[in-house]
Amino acid sequence: MSDQQTVIVFALFPGVTQLDFTGPYQMLCALPGASVILASREGGNITSNEGITFAGLRRLADIPACDVVCVPGGRGVTDNAIKDEVFLDELRRLAGTARYVTSVCTGSLALGAAGLLRGKRAACHWAWRELLVPFGAIPDAGRVVRDGNVVTGGGVTAGIDFALTLVSKLVDEKTAQAIQLRLEYNPAPPFNAGSPDTAPSEVLALMQERMEPHKARRAEMVARAATKLGAHS
Amino acid sequence: MSDQQTVIVFALFPGVTQLDFTGPYQMLCALPGASVILASREGGNITSNEGITFAGLRRLADIPACDVVCVPGGRGVTDNAIKDEVFLDELRRLAGTARYVTSVCTGSLALGAAGLLRGKRAACHWAWRELLVPFGAIPDAGRVVRDGNVVTGGGVTAGIDFALTLVSKLVDEKTAQAIQLRLEYNPAPPFNAGSPDTAPSEVLALMQERMEPHKARRAEMVARAATKLGAHS
Repeated sequence: MSDQQTVIVFALFPGVTQLDFTGPYQMLCALPGASVILASREGGNITSNEGITFAGLRRLADIPACDVVCVPGGRGVTDNAIKDEVFLDELRRLAGTARYVTSVCTGSLALGAAGLLRGKRAACHWAWRELLVPFGAIPDAGRVVRDGNVVTGGGVTAGIDFALTLVSKLVDEKTAQAIQLRLEYNPAPPFNAGSPDTAPSEVLALMQERMEPHKARRAEMVARAATKLGAHS
Repeated sequence: MSDQQTVIVFALFPGVTQLDFTGPYQMLCALPGASVILASREGGNITSNEGITFAGLRRLADIPACDVVCVPGGRGVTDNAIKDEVFLDELRRLAGTARYVTSVCTGSLALGAAGLLRGKRAACHWAWRELLVPFGAIPDAGRVVRDGNVVTGGGVTAGIDFALTLVSKLVDEKTAQAIQLRLEYNPAPPFNAGSPDTAPSEVLALMQERMEPHKARRAEMVARAATKLGAHS
């Protein structure tokens, strides 16, 4: 790794939501001098929540240090990542070497389970934000939230805004703007339904109904991880 | 394939820009009853422009029909897709079965090379839009452009707006809004530099300077593909 290279590691796990990292990946790999790495506990292949298989991942343990570590979200956060002590150990180790410790969507729950969010404000997907509390984090409804060297993005597509913000901090605003122009990020959503505050009430009710069956189980997984974390510290 | 399944095929090639399809993929696979397929000429693995390897792709020839065919963009469009007669034949065949023939970013150049845009208005990445002309298409600066059953998106991130628009046409607005809320697509770019009209002039000049060395070669590739297309028809 050369002196000028910025090493950015996405820490993946089975059942990750792919856009949580493919969005910021596209932005960050346009950063001059960046080495953007997809890695997981075992390396090799990872299949996302949606069924896309990503191949050729590095092993987290083989990455000595990085400038940025980023954990995306997805169903696999509660099903896999926050239960996996080896994954959490690697997160803690890399976070100790990084200039920025980051996440997108429910990836902040993995940062929390690794003990990296105690007393910190953090973003999360709107539906799962309160699950940050058992980890001692302070849920924040911002789309991109910075608290010290912890930068977290809200749900899924917030990863794109997060990445541009991060580029402006890693380098400068002009570089972030050039990447924004190159990727024609001039969003024009055909509807204004992207947050619980703006979505039509029947749409919000529908999504809440669909998420309801998963709530108790995820809260239980988080409670267990928080207990383990407490026992750890 | 059941009667109710909506089959959506992303036609990939080496050197594709991954966010061009991973953005819409995330939106479209949230569509109830959708089967979203990543496919390529040979099937198996494809490596994107940025170096991400996607595994387990289907072969285009093995897909008998679809509701939507979508071609993403990337350097590989001019380097590979528009020169590949087998790929273009498969595009033409699938387009003949589809309710919607679609693209994101420079993917519209592949639709053009397949002869699917004659006399049609189409979107493209802002820097490469004029390359549509040799294929008989009418470049359109819209972020999402619809002309008959052809729906095309502008550069890279426009794929997300494109996908929501497509969902509203395939099903209804409420379904599109529910997906928008689920993926928290409430964009808040930290800068207003996402189009040549809004970017600071020095940022635009920088990007134009970086693209300049590629212009002549890409125009030449397009001219050759347009000549072949003319000989074909």
